[in-house]
Amino acid sequence: MPTVKDVARRAGVSVATVSRVLNNSNRVSDKTRQKVLKAIEELGFKPNLLARNFRKDKSNLILVILPTVANVYFARVVKGIEDAARKRGYGILLCTTGNSPEIACEYLKLIERKQVDGAIIASARIDSETIFDLDQKKIVQACEFYPFLDTSCVLIDHKKAFFEIVDYLIKKGKKNILCAIGNEGIPSEEERKEGYRQALEENGLEFSEENVIRCRYGWADIYERLKVLICSGKYDAIACSSDLMAVGAIKAAKESLLKIPDEFAVTGFDNIMISRIYEPSITTVAQPMYEIGEKAAEILIDSLENPDGFSKQKIILPHEIKTRESA
Amino acid sequence: MPTVKDVARRAGVSVATVSRVLNNSNRVSDKTRQKVLKAIEELGFKPNLLARNFRKDKSNLILVILPTVANVYFARVVKGIEDAARKRGYGILLCTTGNSPEIACEYLKLIERKQVDGAIIASARIDSETIFDLDQKKIVQACEFYPFLDTSCVLIDHKKAFFEIVDYLIKKGKKNILCAIGNEGIPSEEERKEGYRQALEENGLEFSEENVIRCRYGWADIYERLKVLICSGKYDAIACSSDLMAVGAIKAAKESLLKIPDEFAVTGFDNIMISRIYEPSITTVAQPMYEIGEKAAEILIDSLENPDGFSKQKIILPHEIKTRESA
Repeated sequence: MPTVKDVARRAGVSVATVSRVLNNSNRVSDKTRQKVLKAIEELGFKPNLLARNFRKDKSNLILVILPTVANVYFARVVKGIEDAARKRGYGILLCTTGNSPEIACEYLKLIERKQVDGAIIASARIDSETIFDLDQKKIVQACEFYPFLDTSCVLIDHKKAFFEIVDYLIKKGKKNILCAIGNEGIPSEEERKEGYRQALEENGLEFSEENVIRCRYGWADIYERLKVLICSGKYDAIACSSDLMAVGAIKAAKESLLKIPDEFAVTGFDNIMISRIYEPSITTVAQPMYEIGEKAAEILIDSLENPDGFSKQKIILPHEIKTRESA
Repeated sequence: MPTVKDVARRAGVSVATVSRVLNNSNRVSDKTRQKVLKAIEELGFKPNLLARNFRKDKSNLILVILPTVANVYFARVVKGIEDAARKRGYGILLCTTGNSPEIACEYLKLIERKQVDGAIIASARIDSETIFDLDQKKIVQACEFYPFLDTSCVLIDHKKAFFEIVDYLIKKGKKNILCAIGNEGIPSEEERKEGYRQALEENGLEFSEENVIRCRYGWADIYERLKVLICSGKYDAIACSSDLMAVGAIKAAKESLLKIPDEFAVTGFDNIMISRIYEPSITTVAQPMYEIGEKAAEILIDSLENPDGFSKQKIILPHEIKTRESA
């Protein structure tokens, strides 16, 4: 089997140059690139993705830090990362933290240990007390942005997205709208709550802290809470911070024999598969999950391969309101 | 901050012994263990999970190879692995292959490269042509067993499980039962098909290859196929190889205005959350997903820490039929 060295010898270039061509680096002239590609073809050289670590301190692996893999939302983000990484010759490894900032920190140490070249923190919870001195060039935050960690990030405008979906409910005639969001300390959840408040206030409705339900992302927690609240007859809609929460809210409304959406409207967030296949189908905010992952991988690899040219980026991708049967 | 060396010095033992205590190895006497634990307490030593690689060739990381993270089925398996691994002082890294045997092989090379200590292949497709010479002691197969890879494994009896659910349909009076399973070349799918055949034959019904629909695990493929088949009026039930397939089948039956389960019954497989929350709720086979992951991690770590005592194990865990509204 021909090796990278054979290719380098045949093309009359250095091993590093062959590496740059294999990694699609743009620091190679077209002429050189052609020479290398010709040598690869003539020798029948097959580059092996994970064997491409020519330098000992390069693993060609990117770590993706997730809170959990139990949410299919992340599956699309991961697919985007994976496809973009593979195009550039990188494999990816995932780890999950159960939202423990301490576990996130432990896994981030794999960068120092050269087990991975860099990391994408995708929604996993971190905090300013456990986070240690990290090389910002080797980390990108995706979906969520913790400002105390001074890195590039790729996400949507959570406040604007939640504003728009609550505004949509109001335009549909809803006046007593609950808001179900995740627990405190997660930046996107606070942004969404702010979007909810603004939408009410701009439409002349009153914001009240007691209409904000803090709950878990799954369907069961909000289902139990809403079964009680709904009895009051005070509310005509709920804007939820995940599609699974919306499923729980719909279940509670159905059990109270409320007509959806006329008597009680429900919206979700994320646009995961269940929002399309559930009955009624769920009006939700579509996050460009694949694109968030793709873009995060691209900017991370750019800065890993060209650290001198690094400049921090904050990339906001567009979201979209998907109107369906539930609101 | 006190280090492992400090603990060893204080306890009057070697660093390797401290390591064994931290890793819950049973190759340490109780007396020595007490000495080490006392030194740890006195010094206020905090062992860091991922920093516990005292030997250069030990990463304290286990790789989990999955086809995808888009199926929540795997989330439970991963949680079981994670919990069991953490108890023994290991972190886990996940990788996904999109069911490409070549990609599975690339990731398995991380064992040779000492990036991980061992791997659990959880349902990811592998084939005898791409698989290279692997140390069977460092790999466990979970959920699925490819016999050409001579390792320990943890899974359910797929044939028996599918037999039971088809037998259940027959006992409910169904006579013309379709079977929807995954593509060829996956051992569990062939086992399930065999279970379907046996259940029909033992109940005096005829097995016909044309009633076996090969399709993707998601809901859309079977939905399209069944919409056409159902028009014939020939069938009164379908046994599906995943819960998402069952969702697709229910959608197709509903659109044809068939009453579920009286006119058309549907069963799923796995018992993922959607089988409980979908309407109608889905009769399915519950796999002990968490326990499969937990057990796989335990036997892998046992053989990593005590390779001389290695003996190959095939562990079959019990499944359970969950009867709900769809059949």
